[in-house]
Amino acid sequence: MELTNFTYVIKQVELALRPHFNAVCANAGLTPAQYTALTVLARRPGLTSSELARRSFVRAQTMAATIEPLLGDRLVRREQDPTHQRRMLLDLTPKGEALLEEMSPAIRAVEDLIVAEIDENARADFAHYLRSARRSLDTAGPRPSGRRSPD
Amino acid sequence: MELTNFTYVIKQVELALRPHFNAVCANAGLTPAQYTALTVLARRPGLTSSELARRSFVRAQTMAATIEPLLGDRLVRREQDPTHQRRMLLDLTPKGEALLEEMSPAIRAVEDLIVAEIDENARADFAHYLRSARRSLDTAGPRPSGRRSPD
Repeated sequence: MELTNFTYVIKQVELALRPHFNAVCANAGLTPAQYTALTVLARRPGLTSSELARRSFVRAQTMAATIEPLLGDRLVRREQDPTHQRRMLLDLTPKGEALLEEMSPAIRAVEDLIVAEIDENARADFAHYLRSARRSLDTAGPRPSGRRSPD
Repeated sequence: MELTNFTYVIKQVELALRPHFNAVCANAGLTPAQYTALTVLARRPGLTSSELARRSFVRAQTMAATIEPLLGDRLVRREQDPTHQRRMLLDLTPKGEALLEEMSPAIRAVEDLIVAEIDENARADFAHYLRSARRSLDTAGPRPSGRRSPD
């Protein structure tokens, strides 16, 4: 019996998911990073750009390029933090909220596709295993091992 | 209750996995793409470069750059297909097999980490759900939907 190769299959799932997710984003005029930033702001209003970067899996410098078009399109607004004059906070605008709302059936369709063959009861288990894997991987740092022997 | 966001959590798992997997590859002097190519050849000896590309998730052009250092390091060999004179087939060398063998405890450690919190019996379920997700996503093409409304 072949060992399950989780590393390989997780990568395959992510690669198989990408064109579906990217197509939904592109149809809404967004990059995947921009969509992710919008959803993070929907859940966590009033983040700084660096907080948003961290929660969106990108570097602070990358987030500036991600967010500028969203500010330009008035999907996101940037305002002074009332409690810290020198801090700027990002929020969805009503237009940004409306765009997420408009995208939600297409996003939902991708979600449904992922679990198309998995019955209702098992979906919660699948979500639980995925979160467990993320937690285990996040809490352990990569270790140096398996060095290649010199010729 | 918040809806499970599989799209988001799958991306998170893949991102959390990446530094672990990349570190194991780097310690062996390989890129992740090169390691993947070696494992594909271990399972499927005698592939053409374009078959190997397809199974390793990269473009045919990309595979050339991936495989050249492996040929140079004599981890992989390229020989004429005895049944099709004009076709070149790729195979692991004994040195390539030995490198995979040497890396296998470190790779196994990453695998173990992914499922560290998941009990033995549930691991097969997790693997099954992942394969099911891959299959569903692979068989459906992305559909245009959720277009952004013009201003």
